[in-house]
Amino acid sequence: MSVLTTASGPAPVDEPADPPDTGERHRLTAVTGLAALSLDAVASVAYGPEAIVLVLAVAGGHGLGFTLPVTLAIAALLAVLVASYRQVIAAFPDGGGSYAVAKAHLGRRTSLVAAASLVLDYVLNVAVAVTAGVAALTSAFPELYGERVWLCLGVLALITGVNLRGVVDSARAFIVPTAVFVTSILVLIVAGLLRSAPTSTEAAAGHASVLAGNATTVGALLLLKAFASGCSALTGVEAIANAVPSFRTPRVRRAQHAEVALGAVLGVMLIGLAVLISRFHLQPVQGVTVLAQLADASLGHNAAFYVVQFATMTLLALSANTSFGGLPVLLKLLARDNYLPHVFALKADRQVHRHGVLALALVSAALLVLSGGDTNTLVPLFAIGVFIGFTVAQVGMVLYWRERRGPRWRGTAALNGFGAVLTGVCAVVVTATKFADGAWLIVVALPVLVAAFETVHRAYGRIGARLGLGRIPEPPHRDRSVVIVPVSHLSKLTSEALTAAASLGDEVRAVTVCHPDPEDRAQTEALERDWSLWDPGVPLVRIPTARRALGRPIAAYVRDLAATPGTRVTVLIPEVEPARLWQRVLQNQRGAVVAHAVRRDTDAVICRLRFRLG
Amino acid sequence: MSVLTTASGPAPVDEPADPPDTGERHRLTAVTGLAALSLDAVASVAYGPEAIVLVLAVAGGHGLGFTLPVTLAIAALLAVLVASYRQVIAAFPDGGGSYAVAKAHLGRRTSLVAAASLVLDYVLNVAVAVTAGVAALTSAFPELYGERVWLCLGVLALITGVNLRGVVDSARAFIVPTAVFVTSILVLIVAGLLRSAPTSTEAAAGHASVLAGNATTVGALLLLKAFASGCSALTGVEAIANAVPSFRTPRVRRAQHAEVALGAVLGVMLIGLAVLISRFHLQPVQGVTVLAQLADASLGHNAAFYVVQFATMTLLALSANTSFGGLPVLLKLLARDNYLPHVFALKADRQVHRHGVLALALVSAALLVLSGGDTNTLVPLFAIGVFIGFTVAQVGMVLYWRERRGPRWRGTAALNGFGAVLTGVCAVVVTATKFADGAWLIVVALPVLVAAFETVHRAYGRIGARLGLGRIPEPPHRDRSVVIVPVSHLSKLTSEALTAAASLGDEVRAVTVCHPDPEDRAQTEALERDWSLWDPGVPLVRIPTARRALGRPIAAYVRDLAATPGTRVTVLIPEVEPARLWQRVLQNQRGAVVAHAVRRDTDAVICRLRFRLG
Repeated sequence: MSVLTTASGPAPVDEPADPPDTGERHRLTAVTGLAALSLDAVASVAYGPEAIVLVLAVAGGHGLGFTLPVTLAIAALLAVLVASYRQVIAAFPDGGGSYAVAKAHLGRRTSLVAAASLVLDYVLNVAVAVTAGVAALTSAFPELYGERVWLCLGVLALITGVNLRGVVDSARAFIVPTAVFVTSILVLIVAGLLRSAPTSTEAAAGHASVLAGNATTVGALLLLKAFASGCSALTGVEAIANAVPSFRTPRVRRAQHAEVALGAVLGVMLIGLAVLISRFHLQPVQGVTVLAQLADASLGHNAAFYVVQFATMTLLALSANTSFGGLPVLLKLLARDNYLPHVFALKADRQVHRHGVLALALVSAALLVLSGGDTNTLVPLFAIGVFIGFTVAQVGMVLYWRERRGPRWRGTAALNGFGAVLTGVCAVVVTATKFADGAWLIVVALPVLVAAFETVHRAYGRIGARLGLGRIPEPPHRDRSVVIVPVSHLSKLTSEALTAAASLGDEVRAVTVCHPDPEDRAQTEALERDWSLWDPGVPLVRIPTARRALGRPIAAYVRDLAATPGTRVTVLIPEVEPARLWQRVLQNQRGAVVAHAVRRDTDAVICRLRFRLG
Repeated sequence: MSVLTTASGPAPVDEPADPPDTGERHRLTAVTGLAALSLDAVASVAYGPEAIVLVLAVAGGHGLGFTLPVTLAIAALLAVLVASYRQVIAAFPDGGGSYAVAKAHLGRRTSLVAAASLVLDYVLNVAVAVTAGVAALTSAFPELYGERVWLCLGVLALITGVNLRGVVDSARAFIVPTAVFVTSILVLIVAGLLRSAPTSTEAAAGHASVLAGNATTVGALLLLKAFASGCSALTGVEAIANAVPSFRTPRVRRAQHAEVALGAVLGVMLIGLAVLISRFHLQPVQGVTVLAQLADASLGHNAAFYVVQFATMTLLALSANTSFGGLPVLLKLLARDNYLPHVFALKADRQVHRHGVLALALVSAALLVLSGGDTNTLVPLFAIGVFIGFTVAQVGMVLYWRERRGPRWRGTAALNGFGAVLTGVCAVVVTATKFADGAWLIVVALPVLVAAFETVHRAYGRIGARLGLGRIPEPPHRDRSVVIVPVSHLSKLTSEALTAAASLGDEVRAVTVCHPDPEDRAQTEALERDWSLWDPGVPLVRIPTARRALGRPIAAYVRDLAATPGTRVTVLIPEVEPARLWQRVLQNQRGAVVAHAVRRDTDAVICRLRFRLG
């Protein structure tokens, strides 16, 4: 009931996707787990290869030739990450994202950095997924390209609406769309490999090429940039490690299998698409995604092409939706640790996530508008946060192994350490190369978020100390109770208010404020006449006021009364609750004015009695 | 304290511009009264002649030749109106607009029509004055013409801001700008009469003429339209009649003199300007007002020209400002008579006018945007309301004289009756001719407003009956008081809350809601251990809940308790009031959730105890 809730209990872990009372048979196997938890990872196939191609296009056709090597490097990093996360699964069978890992093993400040980067990631994931989804749509229907910002905002509004109403929070619902998408991409790849030339280039026809020339040398920096941008395809590989408790026993084994399978599927898809890009000499154009061009080239501009586009669009929308599930949980953990306002941790009557959902929707909408609905503006920003998260999680693992010093700890620690160095370098590269193009936003936002967490934490600390949290408080005692009832006329409401006041107080006083203007005075005198006629056994006190005012004079009267030691003053404000909602506008707000003034100027308890007209 | 305030007292009158406690020597003489109260009327000179010229321009140069005859007709109507309002002053020395007159003599429904037309007038006055003021400005600085809608909104924002902060409400502040404007217009007229040809046509040079051709005949309908549009110059002649109490004794005499003087000044200005328009063969152009062209022609394109433009701009802004003073007073009168929500009549701590001011600003802003900042789109709409007001007031006067049957009542009644017929015809003409150009808005808005007044009135009537207003209520009694305190942890706040509860209740119970999930259960058990250690002499009740909820279980518990006859249940919600404002975001809203649920589901009194951390 206070600003504080006790921040005790075990180290917080991400809540499992399924509620804890679900039976074992509802839990995930390796296969269903893969299908249910790989959505974010496979969805990133829609924008990862494109990010590589767009960077390399700066060096023209010669540059594009490096698509496959860069993709292979990314696949290698993927292998390292998957191996690393297999170990995370073993070490943290209760699940837990990089915030939990960092909190347990890297100290408070680093965990806050991890949390801040996760917050940014969740937000950017929404923006990237929505823009990429809309890009899939506009690739199929180019006439919608001009309206893409509005389409993005529309999709965001839809997702927000669904989440505000409360979505069925089951990972199981994601299995079918994920399977459809993966299948169609694999079919696309196989069909492409069987051809030596594109079946169709209709989708890209008439669109401006974004090829920037034809360099003869390709610098290392460009390759690094392409690598870093392409790594956005790796987002989501941590999802399985965060949800180990949702698996059927033996949990760790099944989750590890799912993780490896995820890596394999993702790797095959990335490499397969890169091979096709090279084989078809695909060149990026404005307004049509690389994936759409590949579908066109492999499958032809027919129904299959539209199936791929719709599957992509659907999957990306669902991918945006997972942020709406994940961010509020993270915010809740942060709130429980006193790093965010406790309202984010409030479990009450379905209002749990509202604050988180609305905050996420607003920030995402701003990003969509600022980026003009363009995925490729957002992807580098996204990659930074992802890499910071990967790096922090893996450094934490290294420290974990060193603490434990189990058998072969050096090998496992080295693996995690290698992964940490790789992802750390990527974070630096993508920040440096994209600084002017928006990465500065992340560089600014991250420390600001961390500082905000710290500020909130300190404030809660001070408030807790003032309240004497954790100490046994003084015993309560009983004061003499005086109840003040402001009245302006006589009615059933007055009678009801005096009954309530008499029940609550050792002494009751009705008060009325009187301004010296003739009309006011006449009204007050009429009230006093009626009062003595009624004779309710409660004195009516006239409070004179020189200036037109209602709240201040009553507050001043209350303050004077409360100055007597051992007296507790309560102000009881009766109000009519009209039968219909619109009739609320008929309320005169006198109660609100009095309550406001009394609250501001005194420590009196304010009671509000609603008299229901129904 | 309820939705109702007693709607008693004398027939409401417009509040005088000065507060009632001001001494006699601060009151107005005929001369200062004229200067202080003629602002709206003289300001309308800035758009009235232009409205005539624009209508006649449809018939080309031949049409424009009728400017002077039409103006003379308007001056004649002005004479009738002034004579009529002299009688209103005598009949209603306490002041009072057409709403008061109609309420006293024409019945409820007609008075509501008058009130609705006044509301529309106040709103349209803001829109017309702001656009005309900006037109004066853009006539002097043509490069600003493209930005006129933004300029209008800026001026409106400024006026709104000033009025929200609370403006010094003295008519006296208007004397200087009014005097400057009238003087400069009179100088302009005299200077123009001394010339036979324009000194300068620089202001209009390069602007497109709006002359539509050159007809050889001018129809009666066109003349009627010109007359009706030009009558917008008559707005404001009723202001003196509304403010008789502000005059020094003998009030009626002085006010009558001021009214006649106002008529004379206004008439001279209108006729003078019309003579100049004819003499200089002035043709309306786009982007430069007729008044600016006249200033140019009479005074030359020099400093004097800019003085006229700035004086016009200032006066029109002040004219818009008078609506912000007048509309809230009218809304207050309507609220006191139960035709509008009582919040408009609330006299409390400077918040008096906020609702009225904001409503006026919003509707005016909408009109400014819809009209594109063009005065001449708004003038006909304005004229309709003005004429309805004039007509209602004068019909009321006719009935007043017939009732009284004093000496020579037939003559005075005939005068008012003639005025009523004239203005009534004008209302019909301008509505009919401008229906498609926006007048339909008034035709729709007027009955809607009247219906709203009636609906509110009926609702207040029903609520008053339910509350037994005007009857002596049952005597109050005393119930057994049970106070419920929701707790979730132990702190000074808990102790303070139990002290308050013990003072208020015959019995106190602390309650805590417990969900079966392990974390919640552990927390509750810790609280119960601490509680028995503390032993405050108050039982701690555990309310189990199956679903995650906080408010509903407590509300259900309260409902059960309250079912015992003779028991009054109070829920006391303790809350921390942080030291700094921003720390309010740290509050966990548990109190708000509980209060909301208890208020919705039960009739219990809700008490909120603020524990100040200072």
